[in-house]
Amino acid sequence: MSSSKESELPITPLSTLERRANRGSHDRALIDSILDEAFLCHVGVVAQGMPRVIPFAHVRMDDHVYLHGARANFVLGALAAGAPACLTVTLLDGLVFARSAFHHSMNYRSVVLYGAGAVVEDGVEKREALDALVEHMAPGRSHEAKAPDEKELRSTLVVRFPIVEGSAKVRVGPPVDDAELVRDSPCWAGELPLALVARAPRADPLNREHPHSDAVLRVVARLAPA
Amino acid sequence: MSSSKESELPITPLSTLERRANRGSHDRALIDSILDEAFLCHVGVVAQGMPRVIPFAHVRMDDHVYLHGARANFVLGALAAGAPACLTVTLLDGLVFARSAFHHSMNYRSVVLYGAGAVVEDGVEKREALDALVEHMAPGRSHEAKAPDEKELRSTLVVRFPIVEGSAKVRVGPPVDDAELVRDSPCWAGELPLALVARAPRADPLNREHPHSDAVLRVVARLAPA
Repeated sequence: MSSSKESELPITPLSTLERRANRGSHDRALIDSILDEAFLCHVGVVAQGMPRVIPFAHVRMDDHVYLHGARANFVLGALAAGAPACLTVTLLDGLVFARSAFHHSMNYRSVVLYGAGAVVEDGVEKREALDALVEHMAPGRSHEAKAPDEKELRSTLVVRFPIVEGSAKVRVGPPVDDAELVRDSPCWAGELPLALVARAPRADPLNREHPHSDAVLRVVARLAPA
Repeated sequence: MSSSKESELPITPLSTLERRANRGSHDRALIDSILDEAFLCHVGVVAQGMPRVIPFAHVRMDDHVYLHGARANFVLGALAAGAPACLTVTLLDGLVFARSAFHHSMNYRSVVLYGAGAVVEDGVEKREALDALVEHMAPGRSHEAKAPDEKELRSTLVVRFPIVEGSAKVRVGPPVDDAELVRDSPCWAGELPLALVARAPRADPLNREHPHSDAVLRVVARLAPA
């Protein structure tokens, strides 16, 4: 997927980095890398004054994030209707243990995007987005699995969400304790890196033949525990 | 942490399970187990019609989820002001590969809670919540690290969010393809379990002594890659 022409998102009232500005960024390459690594995002919309936040599988293609689901899905329906929305992705990279309880923290990479979605009506774009959603889970998988037929296409709602306003936030590195405590405390401090890994695939007992999927094995290799 | 007196959350307009009701539940034990396993949640509030969704570390104590942060944090401030909010936790358990692209899915456990937060003003409850937040990262750690002093307590905003309205949703198991495709397709189908694991701890180079933390090593053992 090609990158955007713009290398930075604009700084707007919503995307201004007020807190911990040193951890924040509007850099598109960083934003894209976080969107591309995560398997899921959290999307928030408003219904009668109440925010509703739901997890979705997603995929980025160029300057949009694509979501899909059943037409009856409430949040997807609001997105399809063009409601203001917030799309947030968080990758948890580690736990940060300081000498003081106060400075305990987490290492993470997150993206928060603001905008309004739109239904993907065009059949070609819709098929591309659905292929890309499968490819996002496991590159190559869309060539192994049966492509959606007309009935499946009709029953699926695909929504695109623009990458136009928002920011990334990243925390890395060791804890930051007060200098005095660093000097005097005997307490162990440091990071505990966390990673999402794949376990051994579990074949569907109904499988007819085929001992494996190349696409799935590539994901297993990429997300190896060791 | 003791469990609630009520074993089910009430079914309300917001928490009625319309979609995939078979995957949904109002069972408090299930809801609590998901809240207790996750390291972070996503909280949504509304500001001038726009939803804003931000990740937070959290901890459950009895019938509330506690969040903390700096007083300048926008979403925390809205929660502190009693704004309607949605708190969502998602644990990704696996990728589900079907024979058809259409039936690809994910295995997950999620909780969506609706309600209004309140500032924890009481000093005892505030200290308990901050201890619990550290304990949630690593049981026992609050006894190793320096407890918050008065200045740190004052600069931290702690908010409690009630577990009164919402639901859990769980998907487990193999893909569900159309019977005809299961019978005829040679495509490998199955689950790829995913897990969040800990890598080797990285000691802060500034550590004065102490080769390890018992609390951190217990987390390492619990989240072992193998």
